[in-house]
Amino acid sequence: MFFPITEKNVSLSQGPDPKTSIQTERNVQKFDPQAMNYFLEGSRERSELLKSLTQQMERDPILFTDGSYYDLTKDQLREFTATKINRLSRYLEGESIEVFNKRMSLVSIFDTGLSTRIFVNLGLFLSCIKGNGTAEQLKYWSEDKHTNKIKGIYGCFAMTELAHGSNVAGLETTATFDKANDEFVINTPHIGATKWWIGGAAHSATHCTVFARLIVDGKDYGVKTFVVPLRDSNHDLMPGVTVGDIGAKMGRDGVDNGWIQFSSVRIPRFFMLQKFCKVSREGEVVLPPLEQLSYLALMGGRVVMVLDSYRMLARVSTIALRYAIGRRQFKGDNVDPDDEEALETQLLDYPLHQQRLFPYLAAAYVFSAGALRIEKTIGETTSFLDKAVQSNDQAGIMKSIVAMKSLFVDSGSLKSTATWLAAEGIDQCRQACGGHGYSSYNGFGKAYNDWVVQCTWEGDNNVLAMNISRSLIKHVLALEDSGKAVQGSSDFLNRVKEYTGSGANKVILDNANDITDLSRFIKALEVAIIRLSHETAKIVRKEKFDFVGAELVNLSKLKAHHYVLGEYIKRVDSHDDESLKPYLYDLGRVYAATIVLEKFSGIFLTFNVASTSAITDLAKIAIPQLCKKIRPNVVGLTDSFQMSDMMINAAIGNYDGDIYENYFDLVKQLNPPAKDKAPYSAALEAMLNRPTIDERERFEKTIETGKILSK
Amino acid sequence: MFFPITEKNVSLSQGPDPKTSIQTERNVQKFDPQAMNYFLEGSRERSELLKSLTQQMERDPILFTDGSYYDLTKDQLREFTATKINRLSRYLEGESIEVFNKRMSLVSIFDTGLSTRIFVNLGLFLSCIKGNGTAEQLKYWSEDKHTNKIKGIYGCFAMTELAHGSNVAGLETTATFDKANDEFVINTPHIGATKWWIGGAAHSATHCTVFARLIVDGKDYGVKTFVVPLRDSNHDLMPGVTVGDIGAKMGRDGVDNGWIQFSSVRIPRFFMLQKFCKVSREGEVVLPPLEQLSYLALMGGRVVMVLDSYRMLARVSTIALRYAIGRRQFKGDNVDPDDEEALETQLLDYPLHQQRLFPYLAAAYVFSAGALRIEKTIGETTSFLDKAVQSNDQAGIMKSIVAMKSLFVDSGSLKSTATWLAAEGIDQCRQACGGHGYSSYNGFGKAYNDWVVQCTWEGDNNVLAMNISRSLIKHVLALEDSGKAVQGSSDFLNRVKEYTGSGANKVILDNANDITDLSRFIKALEVAIIRLSHETAKIVRKEKFDFVGAELVNLSKLKAHHYVLGEYIKRVDSHDDESLKPYLYDLGRVYAATIVLEKFSGIFLTFNVASTSAITDLAKIAIPQLCKKIRPNVVGLTDSFQMSDMMINAAIGNYDGDIYENYFDLVKQLNPPAKDKAPYSAALEAMLNRPTIDERERFEKTIETGKILSK
Repeated sequence: MFFPITEKNVSLSQGPDPKTSIQTERNVQKFDPQAMNYFLEGSRERSELLKSLTQQMERDPILFTDGSYYDLTKDQLREFTATKINRLSRYLEGESIEVFNKRMSLVSIFDTGLSTRIFVNLGLFLSCIKGNGTAEQLKYWSEDKHTNKIKGIYGCFAMTELAHGSNVAGLETTATFDKANDEFVINTPHIGATKWWIGGAAHSATHCTVFARLIVDGKDYGVKTFVVPLRDSNHDLMPGVTVGDIGAKMGRDGVDNGWIQFSSVRIPRFFMLQKFCKVSREGEVVLPPLEQLSYLALMGGRVVMVLDSYRMLARVSTIALRYAIGRRQFKGDNVDPDDEEALETQLLDYPLHQQRLFPYLAAAYVFSAGALRIEKTIGETTSFLDKAVQSNDQAGIMKSIVAMKSLFVDSGSLKSTATWLAAEGIDQCRQACGGHGYSSYNGFGKAYNDWVVQCTWEGDNNVLAMNISRSLIKHVLALEDSGKAVQGSSDFLNRVKEYTGSGANKVILDNANDITDLSRFIKALEVAIIRLSHETAKIVRKEKFDFVGAELVNLSKLKAHHYVLGEYIKRVDSHDDESLKPYLYDLGRVYAATIVLEKFSGIFLTFNVASTSAITDLAKIAIPQLCKKIRPNVVGLTDSFQMSDMMINAAIGNYDGDIYENYFDLVKQLNPPAKDKAPYSAALEAMLNRPTIDERERFEKTIETGKILSK
Repeated sequence: MFFPITEKNVSLSQGPDPKTSIQTERNVQKFDPQAMNYFLEGSRERSELLKSLTQQMERDPILFTDGSYYDLTKDQLREFTATKINRLSRYLEGESIEVFNKRMSLVSIFDTGLSTRIFVNLGLFLSCIKGNGTAEQLKYWSEDKHTNKIKGIYGCFAMTELAHGSNVAGLETTATFDKANDEFVINTPHIGATKWWIGGAAHSATHCTVFARLIVDGKDYGVKTFVVPLRDSNHDLMPGVTVGDIGAKMGRDGVDNGWIQFSSVRIPRFFMLQKFCKVSREGEVVLPPLEQLSYLALMGGRVVMVLDSYRMLARVSTIALRYAIGRRQFKGDNVDPDDEEALETQLLDYPLHQQRLFPYLAAAYVFSAGALRIEKTIGETTSFLDKAVQSNDQAGIMKSIVAMKSLFVDSGSLKSTATWLAAEGIDQCRQACGGHGYSSYNGFGKAYNDWVVQCTWEGDNNVLAMNISRSLIKHVLALEDSGKAVQGSSDFLNRVKEYTGSGANKVILDNANDITDLSRFIKALEVAIIRLSHETAKIVRKEKFDFVGAELVNLSKLKAHHYVLGEYIKRVDSHDDESLKPYLYDLGRVYAATIVLEKFSGIFLTFNVASTSAITDLAKIAIPQLCKKIRPNVVGLTDSFQMSDMMINAAIGNYDGDIYENYFDLVKQLNPPAKDKAPYSAALEAMLNRPTIDERERFEKTIETGKILSK
């Protein structure tokens, strides 16, 4: 066999040919990845819009991102991110916020820091005003001042403090009403109340929405929100405002997170956000009917994170799966041991490798459906509430509150479950790429570092999971004690009597076939949630909620899996392209079998939801069989994400599959082969060529000296 | 209550006081942390030696490490690491390698890149020569050339290639014997054979041990090892040697990993390492009796990684636990809801928080025992083999091979299990610190990024786990088919008949009490391993080994838990300080209940090792009870690691517990509060203050223009 000497890399014998492996498989794919993308993105229109947005950004000289991005220092990232924000503001001027949000959803995959830094302004700052301010206040701060076009004002969101994160009600910054001057005085009483982690505060923001305790006539009315200017139009800090840079973070170094201390900073009374809560000129305080009303606007962030989880899992599983098709390692059991010429086995032909990666591929598909669904629900709920508030329709407001409670449970359990799973997926995909997964240029390191904060911010995953499950348990208690039926997405809890007590031993999944029956699986999930809720409620009757934290977290995860898998099945069932369905159902089954059943096998077994033989067969039969079915379609299933090489930004994960050439070329381009020594080589050489220790010790410890000094 | 205005931070009201929380608990600890450290480090002598080494490094102006370390760029880290190597070489000149290795074990916690960069020279390069070279070759390259004192020569270890990692036998670099010149010609035939990931190659190394295929008279004898000079004494690259920098990595940026291509590089025949394999002047090849003999020297790296896992878990659990004692969040169930003055609840008083963190605290303790034990075993086996080889004692060599096989299983399962668990522990401890866990200055980000490569290098964890379990399964097959008894640390497999077949339903853990009986738990682990091995062996009889990859990985983990927990119990049993034992047994129980039983509950249930009620009680009774017992001793149990603030290097994890002041001070010191705008502020301001879009579009799209242009 002769391998031509190419310009790129001089070869005297045949090297690896991963490109052919991928292309050969791609050639025999049986479905159209573009059509599959319509399913993933919800419609042909949306899919095509995303593609055109991607193309704009790929061709944009400022927004275009490649491997060199991984070499940027924190300071370079900070500056470059600002440059990119400037560029994006021009796109924003010409498009609706809905389109721009879709653009951001793409940006959040290839430049997470960039999307975050914009999100603190357009997302958090404006959402806070939207949620807490009147329509006029929103119009003023958003449209009139052009903030919504990243112009004039740049906002940030000053909620968390150095000593207070999850417990918003415990924040300690004060907003004291000064009746004489008709002003609020914003103050940081001590170090613990220093606003901390405030994205945009260190360098960018001109204004912030501050969460502070409203104090009127010495009385503390709890935490409310205020717009406080930080910098004037010349970008100089306002008097009384101290700002600092939080410094280096695990990831997202492009975001200028900062801390803020307010030292008696005065703002006019009308800078208070007063949709639900007001202070009159005379100091009379009107409190909101329901504090929760203002939270809806912030729930949007959680919903976006489910969509982010889909895209991130799509990205990293594409990298790892393309690599696993191109990479060969050992001659596995599928190779004739007597065939000396045989190539090594493709990584992805090892069953374990399939079992490591297919769950995350499946999760990407399943989350896409869950994300689209919850995005739709929050949109509907928000516009319904807005209308009700504007027309002061009390019945409508109360109806919105019920919908919001359901949404709170769904978005909270989804946010925590999806972001955890995506973090795990990034890590597993990296490990599946072996050493090359550890190179920055293959994307995983930065992806992980940037990602994991999603598990902490906008509701720490554990706190969030416990909160939402607490409401589930309260439902169960109310149901058991007074027969009050559960409404909304958890209404299956109403069947608690059927599956507990005398029904506690009814097994839902008896054998391996049951596992792959998706509707039965959904039922099994419901019964698992019912029984775990029931048992947990029993403990809560004796102990308190703090005692069952671990159970609550599990409940939240099961609830999220129930939601996304249910929505996924519905979406597949009703999809118009029949040819795709067999593939989609199999992915749903992989998700059910691995992400849910395998991980929670202890719960499914102890609560008799699955039989021992079902769980044994899961590992021995169901999962291997499913993987075998998925294996031939992997190239198509990953191509279906329609992620361009820029979005992927991983040398070993490019579309062409030319793993080694792409990777080596990038490494050489960014780190040209040594023509000279390292900049600090002189010090190294001096170390290696140093005189002997005797000489450096002036021969003071030698035997000869010893003789002299011992005399 | 009056809070004095300190110089540090102006306070007008009482701020948080985490320092008092920690100190109050510290004051009532019931055991001596120093005495506990003697247990952890194996002896008083070793404990004190480590302490004096730490002190030397803390006071050393070059080696001292603090928060500023987290701000270093890759290029700064590279240079600074070289400076530190130079400094450490002076300590090395004055101490034995045994002492220096202990020093390195400490360095690996506070500057992982530094210890790695030294390890590629003293560990990998010299170990490869020790394992493959004659005693004379070792003496020449190590002592005569002063390499062992980091002087003269700096070695690296050129094993992995761009297209070959785990499969060493498949490496493609060639070493062709040129009989005419009595030389080997080292060559890289194509891009895939480029040596890749070679630590030290980019900037430092003068020599490398190359793994290359020995070709004599056209015949391929497989992969052997050769010493190849890369740079001359002036640090200029040798002809035919091309070296490049691998560039940015997820972590360990202080290490100058590089790639190497050899283009017909000639070395004298005697540069081949020829302890077991020789090529004569005439080209006659003598092959080694057993290839494995050379692997023992490399097993040392795996053993070190178990010790590293102990130290890393000790470090991160100390940070997270100190923070959890000082940090308060929400008023939990332990606070009287009517008491308005009551402080918020300490994080660590939440049962879930205990259940999240105590497993890793316990794992640190348990791994310390496992690490000490396997370190001792490898030392004994190595010196026994060395003696046998030197005296050509064939029986002794064969005996060593048996011991090595056992060691291979133990070190491989431990390395993979411990490094995975430590990675998980770093991540969980970070999450437990909420947002502050994401700040670089609290150590977790760098710890994780530096750490996770341990799961990949020196035997990818999955590949390693499968390898070692394959040998377990072969034992079981031999036992079942021909009654061949198993020897060494897996000899409990000999009881396979007792616990399978008619004994397959014998439950070992019936209830919650059984779970906390450690000797019964060890038995349960053995039975789980026996039954899983037996079932896996059954599948292997029909299918091939590739099919049972997932089972093999689980087996390896269970085997490792069995080893470390067994060694831990033995060590506690025989410890001379009785006062410590109750605490130590409880930690062992936590490990058993959480790290093993909870995680593998599916296996324990499906194989009837534990009853359903035992597993139910685990979560409901056993784990909460254990956590409750551990809770009051946490300060003592973490202080017992005797890690100084430099080793910890996390602002929120300092000994004094003054979380907020320490953290804020460090942030301000490294990022002085903005006295001026950001360096790139002008661009931001220009964006915000830009003219309207109509103006920038030269009013070309206005209604007025429209009227003109539409006429």
